[in-house]
Amino acid sequence: MNMKFYHLGDLHFGKSIYGLSMLDDQRYFVDRFLECCTQERPDAVVIAGDVYDRSAPSGDAVELLDYMLTELAGMDIPVMLVAGNHDSGQRLSFASSILAKQNVHIAGTPQKAMEHVTLGDPDGSGPVTFWLLPYIYPEVASHVLDDEEIRTYEEAIRRMIEEQEIDPSHRNIIVSHQNVVANGREAERGGSESMVGGVGQIDYSAYDAFDYAALGHIHSSYPVGRDEIRYAGTPLCLVSDK
Amino acid sequence: MNMKFYHLGDLHFGKSIYGLSMLDDQRYFVDRFLECCTQERPDAVVIAGDVYDRSAPSGDAVELLDYMLTELAGMDIPVMLVAGNHDSGQRLSFASSILAKQNVHIAGTPQKAMEHVTLGDPDGSGPVTFWLLPYIYPEVASHVLDDEEIRTYEEAIRRMIEEQEIDPSHRNIIVSHQNVVANGREAERGGSESMVGGVGQIDYSAYDAFDYAALGHIHSSYPVGRDEIRYAGTPLCLVSDK
Repeated sequence: MNMKFYHLGDLHFGKSIYGLSMLDDQRYFVDRFLECCTQERPDAVVIAGDVYDRSAPSGDAVELLDYMLTELAGMDIPVMLVAGNHDSGQRLSFASSILAKQNVHIAGTPQKAMEHVTLGDPDGSGPVTFWLLPYIYPEVASHVLDDEEIRTYEEAIRRMIEEQEIDPSHRNIIVSHQNVVANGREAERGGSESMVGGVGQIDYSAYDAFDYAALGHIHSSYPVGRDEIRYAGTPLCLVSDK
Repeated sequence: MNMKFYHLGDLHFGKSIYGLSMLDDQRYFVDRFLECCTQERPDAVVIAGDVYDRSAPSGDAVELLDYMLTELAGMDIPVMLVAGNHDSGQRLSFASSILAKQNVHIAGTPQKAMEHVTLGDPDGSGPVTFWLLPYIYPEVASHVLDDEEIRTYEEAIRRMIEEQEIDPSHRNIIVSHQNVVANGREAERGGSESMVGGVGQIDYSAYDAFDYAALGHIHSSYPVGRDEIRYAGTPLCLVSDK
């Protein structure tokens, strides 16, 4: 048996393009996605950051995420969500300890002991641990780990991961929202993050400890370095109006 | 036996006075309040609106409410919270269906069927039902109830209450954030809502159906018309900087 989970990222709920809100289309996407969940009954849904387009999302955008999470919780499908660079981690963390009891796991701000969730045996092949790493700046990693040597994004990620006690007898999945590349080159990209360019590149080998890295940040869907390190891409094409 | 609950209102988390954030003082208040809850073990905590000072609260303000609710949920104390006019009901409702399963009840936007929560028998004297009515404008009540006759705040409240099936064999408590007066006169008031003046006054008799009305909006603590219709007042004195 293999476990089955959906890996989403970069939903950017509430985004406007040329002054036109995408919310209606995003609602349409969410409904189709929930239909897929009803049919396929995944063992988990992973959302790899940038759920909102702005750190202070509109009420309508909040309502859409609320709807999506409530439906998934109602289906007893665990949710693993991390904040991206567009999200306010603090705001996104609201009520996260309480929500965790209903199997909705939201990691808003990076912690020294990375938030992680173990599913006992979703598929008869033993435990699976999800590691939730919100978007992290080098300065934040330096502060969180009290390590002044951390200067780059790659050092931040490597040191954050080193710090964790990862049990290799589990299957381990990390959810991370960063700019990850293979051999110094980016693969095909798309959408509004393209303008980010090479800022803060992280070599994919930083995620060596994991059986799967569920990435968000880049808006195309593709593997980075190996098949098990992947960007989900955006569900809907986003062209920036800025 | 009598049931015991705390009635708070107008927390205004994140408010600044003359450019100085009140958050440290508000955190201090929350910690003292949680100590009281540990000692007194109330059957419920009621928060009658204006938990935040702004419809888009700062991350720190969100974190403070998160902390407060998480601690109360950890003590298994039910929470009944409604949005005030300073809150964004939509944003405050985030994850409310999921939170309700952990006994944290948040009513952000007014519904035709008012959100209500029955505690089976907290004190050996039978059931108690809490009715959660977020701040409501006449135009919203008119829309929610599909009734064009509603023009005033008082009509809005009376019609919203009429619409509910209130079981008189329960003790019934309403949580409401409005401008309530007795005999056309306001009692002593204080704090920044004083400037509201007579706008949207509602006679206290609108709440006749309830054994207790836990009010928020006016910043002083006092009864309105009868002892069981009360403003909580603000925990900390707020003097507006605007």
